[in-house]
Amino acid sequence: MKKIAVILSGCGVFDGSEIQESVITLLEIEQQGANYQCFAPDIEQLHVINHLTGEVAAGETRNVLVESARIARGNIQDVTKIDVNAFDAIILPGGFGAAKNLSDFALVGPQAKVQADVVSAVQSFKKADKPIGLICITPALTPLLLGEGVVCTIGSDKGTADAITAMGGIHQTCAVDDIVIDNNNKLVTTPAYMLAENITQIASGIRKLVQQVVSMS
Amino acid sequence: MKKIAVILSGCGVFDGSEIQESVITLLEIEQQGANYQCFAPDIEQLHVINHLTGEVAAGETRNVLVESARIARGNIQDVTKIDVNAFDAIILPGGFGAAKNLSDFALVGPQAKVQADVVSAVQSFKKADKPIGLICITPALTPLLLGEGVVCTIGSDKGTADAITAMGGIHQTCAVDDIVIDNNNKLVTTPAYMLAENITQIASGIRKLVQQVVSMS
Repeated sequence: MKKIAVILSGCGVFDGSEIQESVITLLEIEQQGANYQCFAPDIEQLHVINHLTGEVAAGETRNVLVESARIARGNIQDVTKIDVNAFDAIILPGGFGAAKNLSDFALVGPQAKVQADVVSAVQSFKKADKPIGLICITPALTPLLLGEGVVCTIGSDKGTADAITAMGGIHQTCAVDDIVIDNNNKLVTTPAYMLAENITQIASGIRKLVQQVVSMS
Repeated sequence: MKKIAVILSGCGVFDGSEIQESVITLLEIEQQGANYQCFAPDIEQLHVINHLTGEVAAGETRNVLVESARIARGNIQDVTKIDVNAFDAIILPGGFGAAKNLSDFALVGPQAKVQADVVSAVQSFKKADKPIGLICITPALTPLLLGEGVVCTIGSDKGTADAITAMGGIHQTCAVDDIVIDNNNKLVTTPAYMLAENITQIASGIRKLVQQVVSMS
């Protein structure tokens, strides 16, 4: 049975992993006859957002690994534990956590750096020629993770697409229910909530992404 | 288009709504051609559980409505705002939040009381002869919500089944991928993570439950 590593970035669209994207990714991995193991970095979140008001919860701190464990029902490991030899592919769901916790893209745009353990994990899959799936905002990190010239999509948001171009990536516009495939780099990307207006739309794109990632592995 | 009210109880299986069950419920409502509005009570959680260690996070407090907003991407309302006339059915996903926040069933078993606004909301659907779907542990609240003699399932856990019987409910054993229907009360229940070992199993049962609830409405 194929096994897919999934990196989460917290629990909640505004300060962590987008929950709906994460769950549909896990469901679709199983529906494709594979299984998964979740991982997250053991670091503090950039901040905590009250998801009812959209405001920063002043003085509150939460840990990315601990909060990600909510989505994974406690079955999650530190991202430093990923052994590429134990997996056939890796997928990163979206959410602002990718741009706030896994990197500082939300703060500095094209000058962003990705958290070192996340870089190591994703690059180990590239070196092993194993497929990589990036969802929603996470493809904005593509040039930082996989180098220049890699083709990806975040949908059609001009600011984010321009940032990808500025970092040396190649952005392709993509419909919400579709995927972009870079066969040379075994990279698959889909816009999900960068474009979606409802959960059905993200499910369509994520299903295609997971199917493609599993079939490439 | 049919509209389904969904009551959440926080964000995370051990102290709130079971996240995977909640997301699959929302997805399946849309896949059935209906749409949803999430609600939760504006109350403090019983406690906060660190989902990585399973331990109580001493001194930490979180609000059920604010945390539930993470699953709903901010689109959520106080449960006191539910107007039964605006909806065709109501569904409660599982998670310990149902037994810790929506009620005190986790603490006192058959002597439990359900939070007053949640009782009012669910009973308004019964009075209006509109279908009710309860998932995972939430059917344990059936006798408290809908009165004695109502038929439901939480799977096969003897302790919980006995508590339902002690409160005047009628428990039926049910497979993880199946549902129990009480046609007299328009109540549909499924075991989900009371029995499930993976996300595929909960998806099978929840899909059947949502299909049944929508078709009854």
